[in-house]
Amino acid sequence: MEPFATENGGLAVNHRICSALLLAIAAPLAAEVDLDAVDAWREANGTDILRGFAELLAIPNTPAHPEGLRRTAEWARDELAARGAAAELLEWPGAPPLVWARLTAPGATRTLGVYVHYDGQPVDPPSWTHPPFEPVLYTASMEAGGRPRPFPERNETIDPNWYIYARSAGDDKAPIPAMLAALDALKAQGTAPTVNLVFLFEGEEERGSTHLGQFFEEYRDRLDVDLWLICDGPVHQSRRPQLVFGVRGYSGIDLTVYGAERYLHSGHYGNWAPNPAWMLAELLATMRDDDGNVLIESFYDSVEMLSPRDREAVLAVPGAEKSLQQELGLVRTEGGGASLIERIMVPSLNIRGMASATVGPTARNIVPRIAEASLDVRLVKGNNADEQLDLIEAHIRKQGYTIVREDPDHATRLAHPKLIKVVRRPGYPAVRTSIDAPVAAPIIEAADRAAGESVILMPTLGGSLPLYLFTEQLGDPIVVVPIANHDDNQHAPDENMRIGNLWYGIRLFAAIFATED
Amino acid sequence: MEPFATENGGLAVNHRICSALLLAIAAPLAAEVDLDAVDAWREANGTDILRGFAELLAIPNTPAHPEGLRRTAEWARDELAARGAAAELLEWPGAPPLVWARLTAPGATRTLGVYVHYDGQPVDPPSWTHPPFEPVLYTASMEAGGRPRPFPERNETIDPNWYIYARSAGDDKAPIPAMLAALDALKAQGTAPTVNLVFLFEGEEERGSTHLGQFFEEYRDRLDVDLWLICDGPVHQSRRPQLVFGVRGYSGIDLTVYGAERYLHSGHYGNWAPNPAWMLAELLATMRDDDGNVLIESFYDSVEMLSPRDREAVLAVPGAEKSLQQELGLVRTEGGGASLIERIMVPSLNIRGMASATVGPTARNIVPRIAEASLDVRLVKGNNADEQLDLIEAHIRKQGYTIVREDPDHATRLAHPKLIKVVRRPGYPAVRTSIDAPVAAPIIEAADRAAGESVILMPTLGGSLPLYLFTEQLGDPIVVVPIANHDDNQHAPDENMRIGNLWYGIRLFAAIFATED
Repeated sequence: MEPFATENGGLAVNHRICSALLLAIAAPLAAEVDLDAVDAWREANGTDILRGFAELLAIPNTPAHPEGLRRTAEWARDELAARGAAAELLEWPGAPPLVWARLTAPGATRTLGVYVHYDGQPVDPPSWTHPPFEPVLYTASMEAGGRPRPFPERNETIDPNWYIYARSAGDDKAPIPAMLAALDALKAQGTAPTVNLVFLFEGEEERGSTHLGQFFEEYRDRLDVDLWLICDGPVHQSRRPQLVFGVRGYSGIDLTVYGAERYLHSGHYGNWAPNPAWMLAELLATMRDDDGNVLIESFYDSVEMLSPRDREAVLAVPGAEKSLQQELGLVRTEGGGASLIERIMVPSLNIRGMASATVGPTARNIVPRIAEASLDVRLVKGNNADEQLDLIEAHIRKQGYTIVREDPDHATRLAHPKLIKVVRRPGYPAVRTSIDAPVAAPIIEAADRAAGESVILMPTLGGSLPLYLFTEQLGDPIVVVPIANHDDNQHAPDENMRIGNLWYGIRLFAAIFATED
Repeated sequence: MEPFATENGGLAVNHRICSALLLAIAAPLAAEVDLDAVDAWREANGTDILRGFAELLAIPNTPAHPEGLRRTAEWARDELAARGAAAELLEWPGAPPLVWARLTAPGATRTLGVYVHYDGQPVDPPSWTHPPFEPVLYTASMEAGGRPRPFPERNETIDPNWYIYARSAGDDKAPIPAMLAALDALKAQGTAPTVNLVFLFEGEEERGSTHLGQFFEEYRDRLDVDLWLICDGPVHQSRRPQLVFGVRGYSGIDLTVYGAERYLHSGHYGNWAPNPAWMLAELLATMRDDDGNVLIESFYDSVEMLSPRDREAVLAVPGAEKSLQQELGLVRTEGGGASLIERIMVPSLNIRGMASATVGPTARNIVPRIAEASLDVRLVKGNNADEQLDLIEAHIRKQGYTIVREDPDHATRLAHPKLIKVVRRPGYPAVRTSIDAPVAAPIIEAADRAAGESVILMPTLGGSLPLYLFTEQLGDPIVVVPIANHDDNQHAPDENMRIGNLWYGIRLFAAIFATED
């Protein structure tokens, strides 16, 4: 397969230059694919599409199934190869293989990267209604009273509200049959992708993409694209399709405050010996105001300004706050009434957990020895993970603490009145493509056409993914292109995919692949 | 044994009236016992005293040994009876028996109650150097390099720095052989107690004196005394003998703050959904100033003023703070440099434990559902347990919280922006006899004579004991009369008693029992 690598490497430079030139002068792009024809083809071939999807879902793909992961990768490689792609498995010791494939469009000036992960979260079969790798079709979601039904015969009408249940149905195998069907549908109407496509299917996302950076380093020359489509995640809770232009970065810090070297009797020593639980509470209380806004100096300063278009998108995100509050039993929210998306556009500081001695029936009459808190920090564009932790440490020092990196010994304790151990967890930055970036325009337009309405343009997810590997290591922008239903029980038992969302995926990929270049 | 009950009941009323009259006009009291003669007798009989002590220590006496507890009680009853006391076991269903005995002094106008507990803390034999119920004599403490040695032959010189190791050696069997020897020593010099003595040995102190109040109610007519000597606890860390005039009361409160009804993803919902860990930290931080002084309104208001003599005693308590701080690794203490005893003279509010989700390797990227803290409150004379908790609740309400007593349901959550569950633990008041109470004077004088110096007069222990049963239910004042060495490993493996402290106990009880009435 080496020839392809060389060929790609050579082409890639030209693509990059050409597309940069092209994008700089890009006018609104018209799409040339006929989505009605795509729908017609899908209607005629829905049975086979579902059977193919079920075949893929039947291959076990959790970390406990290394052989299943490889078979999953081989299945995807073979299907891509069958559609004319140069497809192979890229290997790295200790990692499931990466499925890589390239489909060259004659005369194309742009290359889209198409990322999917084919691995799934671990399963606990007893908590599933059906075995997780025996896909079952339902007449509706289980919650909506759906019942199992046989897979349809050829030419039987398929209801878009049917659900298919199996591990990874929604997260994240569904994009694979959707994009394969999109290629088939284009071929059936005598067209083909108008952009070059580089497919990259990872097998380790649910374990934190541990080796993805090493793969990128090793196989960089096969990964020269203009934009990565991250095909993962669900559409909006309102079932409206969305494009997501970023994810937040992540960092974290663990704090340990010290009292006396041993537990002390609270009657004999309480309110004389420093109580680390109280010290920690007092320290944490200095970090935020009553509304949950972070008071650490400069915490919000490095946030990158939003463009007017991005700001518009933030305001346009449909609010689900009222129903969420009802569901979660919350009268009050933090941020003084700010919307969820507004809160997500700034960095956050959250206590993940807190502990000091014991509570409840095992609590004892002592002054605790230590008190611990674990905090996570979500970063937005402009924040640097290390710098954000530096700000927190500066704040802690301002409260009179001496920071240590390991449990202090006796001499250290006797040298400092207030000691805290700060352990910084490794972090990574946020990623966000501006919604008005030229490279995003054809994707937005394709998605609007596929959805038949304006899709939601979500500037960022609140959660974190290491997409900086794409933007920083490979230097390419990303757009997250979700197709799964929001109620897909992602990571949970009875994971599923709504058939209508799979159909949307086929239209979406057809529109994106065959957008006029 | 019924005749004694009747006789005592009749006598008691007279004693009470007489002693009240006598004490009101009490001049300084001279002691008539010759303590040199007591020492001489003890020197001649030390071998037998130690053998008797070892015999008592060999009887298992933890809650796991109900039969051993009864044998211990019978041993003590028989020894008291052998010295002329009307002695019996008082029974209550489900409780180890109380040893009760009365020794009437002809013409005496005062009755002293002598309380000891004969039960011991549970044992974990593998962590002991010797089996906990096989007493072993050492040439010094283990820490000081002492070695096991045989029990002495008759007339062999006994070193007061020898230590005897066994469960309950210090806490709290030691006073029993000491007071038996004191009675023998008095008899040997042809004298006898000059006060009436009521002995009361409890078998359930280490389990919280669960049935003591019921015993008091049932057997009240046998318990009519002028002052209870609580024979328990260690002397001062400086090895100087002390009398202790009070203990603090106890109460406690458990707090649970609520966030959303389920764990939320910290990236998607952090800093929008209220974080109960942060709310709890903020709430706790409002309760104290930087020096650890309680900011809850009126928290210190009900503290009973000290008499000038009590205040003098507080100032005279030897300070061990510097060496304690060195030992505990503490540069800073709470209370702005106040001494330990000064801190103990006011009520305390202490976090015993704090918890919210998890920290360390098991911490997850969530917004916790709840946060909990367990607080204990130590009370001083004047404080009422319930009222002190009321003040805390009023403070919590002032911070905007609605207090509930059980986990809130969905409707309750949706009705209140800030919810906290407050569970009040049962409490009991402090006990303190004023050092200048007339009833205390002969005890102080006897202790000074026994110690050969002014003993430390400790206005209160920081810890809590339910001595209010004596002061409130029986209506009698108390003085705590400790004889054990401070390094007796109370409640721990290798518990011990220093022989010199046992000798002090014999002098002390002889002086107290035979003080001129």
